[in-house]
Amino acid sequence: VILVNGRPAESVDVRDRGLAYGDGVFRTLRTRNAGPLWWRDHYAKLASDCAALLLPCPDEALLHDEVSRVSRADHGIVKIMLTRGPGARGYALPPLQPPTRVVFAAALPAYAEVGAPDDITARWCALRLGRQPRLAGIKHLNRLENVLARAEWDDPAIVEGLVCDEAGSVIGGVMSNLVIVRDSELYTPDLSECGVAGVARQRLLRAAESRGLTVHVEPLSPAAILAADEVMLCNSVMGLRRVAVLDGKHYVPAGWTAILKTVLNDDGD
Amino acid sequence: VILVNGRPAESVDVRDRGLAYGDGVFRTLRTRNAGPLWWRDHYAKLASDCAALLLPCPDEALLHDEVSRVSRADHGIVKIMLTRGPGARGYALPPLQPPTRVVFAAALPAYAEVGAPDDITARWCALRLGRQPRLAGIKHLNRLENVLARAEWDDPAIVEGLVCDEAGSVIGGVMSNLVIVRDSELYTPDLSECGVAGVARQRLLRAAESRGLTVHVEPLSPAAILAADEVMLCNSVMGLRRVAVLDGKHYVPAGWTAILKTVLNDDGD
Repeated sequence: VILVNGRPAESVDVRDRGLAYGDGVFRTLRTRNAGPLWWRDHYAKLASDCAALLLPCPDEALLHDEVSRVSRADHGIVKIMLTRGPGARGYALPPLQPPTRVVFAAALPAYAEVGAPDDITARWCALRLGRQPRLAGIKHLNRLENVLARAEWDDPAIVEGLVCDEAGSVIGGVMSNLVIVRDSELYTPDLSECGVAGVARQRLLRAAESRGLTVHVEPLSPAAILAADEVMLCNSVMGLRRVAVLDGKHYVPAGWTAILKTVLNDDGD
Repeated sequence: VILVNGRPAESVDVRDRGLAYGDGVFRTLRTRNAGPLWWRDHYAKLASDCAALLLPCPDEALLHDEVSRVSRADHGIVKIMLTRGPGARGYALPPLQPPTRVVFAAALPAYAEVGAPDDITARWCALRLGRQPRLAGIKHLNRLENVLARAEWDDPAIVEGLVCDEAGSVIGGVMSNLVIVRDSELYTPDLSECGVAGVARQRLLRAAESRGLTVHVEPLSPAAILAADEVMLCNSVMGLRRVAVLDGKHYVPAGWTAILKTVLNDDGD
C-alpha cells in the first residue's frame, strides 16, 4: 500500500513541485515487526532537512503512524517523500501549505537481506560531485548526480560506487556514506560542500566518539582509502558493510566492521 | 487540460523517477494561435537534453500534436516534462521504457504579457550555483538551486535575480539567460559548468553572429555587468528584456534591446 497524505493512492498531482523541481526531501529507512528502526534519528534528520528547504515538517506521531501502517510484518524498507506540494508554474515559493507526504514500503534489496554477507565489492565512479554548500548533507529530491554515477556500472556483483568531488576528495558511495579506520582511528569525509549526511553515519560517529574512539571528519583522498586498514560503507538500509574489493584492490579484514556494527545499534531504535 | 502520456489526467505515478530523483527534463515554451513558437529549436533542445541523461526522446510530431492540443487559442505558455518513468526504488536505471510525458498549458505571467514593458528590474542573488559539467546547460528537473535563489525576494516589482557561480562569475538569471552589449559587441556567460543554456539565448547568439555582430561566450564578472552599455535577460516566455534597474544601478537605454528583439524572431517559428 502507498499512502499519499495519509490515504491509499497510486499517484500525485502533476503540478506537485516535487516533480517539477525536485522540491522536497526523502528518507529510506529499515523496518522490522511493522515499525521503523532508528526512528528518532530519522525524524530528526527529516525535520532538519525540511528546515533547510523552508518546508514545514509533518508531525512526528503522524509520520510514525503512516510508516507503521505500510511496514511489512517482518523485515523491509519504507520510503518517505515530502515535497512542497502543488504549485503554479514558476520557481517562486507557493503560499505556505502542508507538504505532500508519500509513504510506501519496499522489499529489502539482495545486498541488505537478513544474513547477506558483510563483505561487498565496490568500484570508483568517474562522475565528480558538484559543490553546493546550501544543499550539502541534505537528502533532497535533486538526485541526478546519483543517477548518473549509478548508471556507470551494471554488474550486479558490484554493490556500490565511490564518488569524489570536483577537487578529487572522496565523498562517499552513490547511496551510502564512507568510513575508514587507520591506526585505530576513524575517518569519514567532510560533507559540508556535497554528499548526503546519512543517519547510519551519524549514529556510527556518535557511538564511536562516546566509546572513546578518535573520529576525524575531514577531506579524504583516494590514496587514503587505499591505505586504510578497513574501508566501510553504511546506510540505513544495509547497515555497515566492509569493502572487501575496490576495483583491483583486495582488503584483508582487520576486524573493525564487526566491532562497529554492534555499536551502530547500541543507541537503540 | 493536462495530458499525461497523451491522455487527459491530473496525476502521475507516485513511483515516477521524475518525482523520486528529478530524473527528467523540461521545456517551457510560448504558444500563439494554438501552436508552439520556436518549435524546431525547442524540440532540438529537448532531444539534446534527453540524450545527455540517456532518456529516449518522444517523436517530434507526437509532442507537437500534444502541445497544440493543450495550447490556448491566443497567447499562452505550454510546459513539457519528460521523465524516466516509474521505476523500482534505487538509483539504478530501470529497463529502457518510453519516458513519462506531461504536457499542459499555463497563462502568461504578468511580466510576459503582450504589451508588457521591455524594461525590467533585477537584483543580485546571494546563492552561488554549484559547478557540475555533466548537468550544465541541461534544463533538467533538479532545480532546487533555482528555487532557493528565487526565494530570496518577494517584491513583485523585481522580475529576476542574477546568480553567480561559486567562483563569482555571473551565470545568468534564475529563470533566464543573460546577454550584455559593450562597445557594440555581445557577451554572454559561458555555461559549460553550470546554468541552463536556453533556446532564446541560442536563437539570439545565432542571429547576432549571422548579422556580423561579434559574440563572446566567456566568464563575466559582476563588474562587467555594471560596466555594460546594455544588460538584457531572455527566455522563451518573456523573449528579450532590458534590465533598467539592477539593485541600486540605473542603466540608460542604449537601443540594443529593440534591435536584438527583432533579430530573435527573424529565424521564424
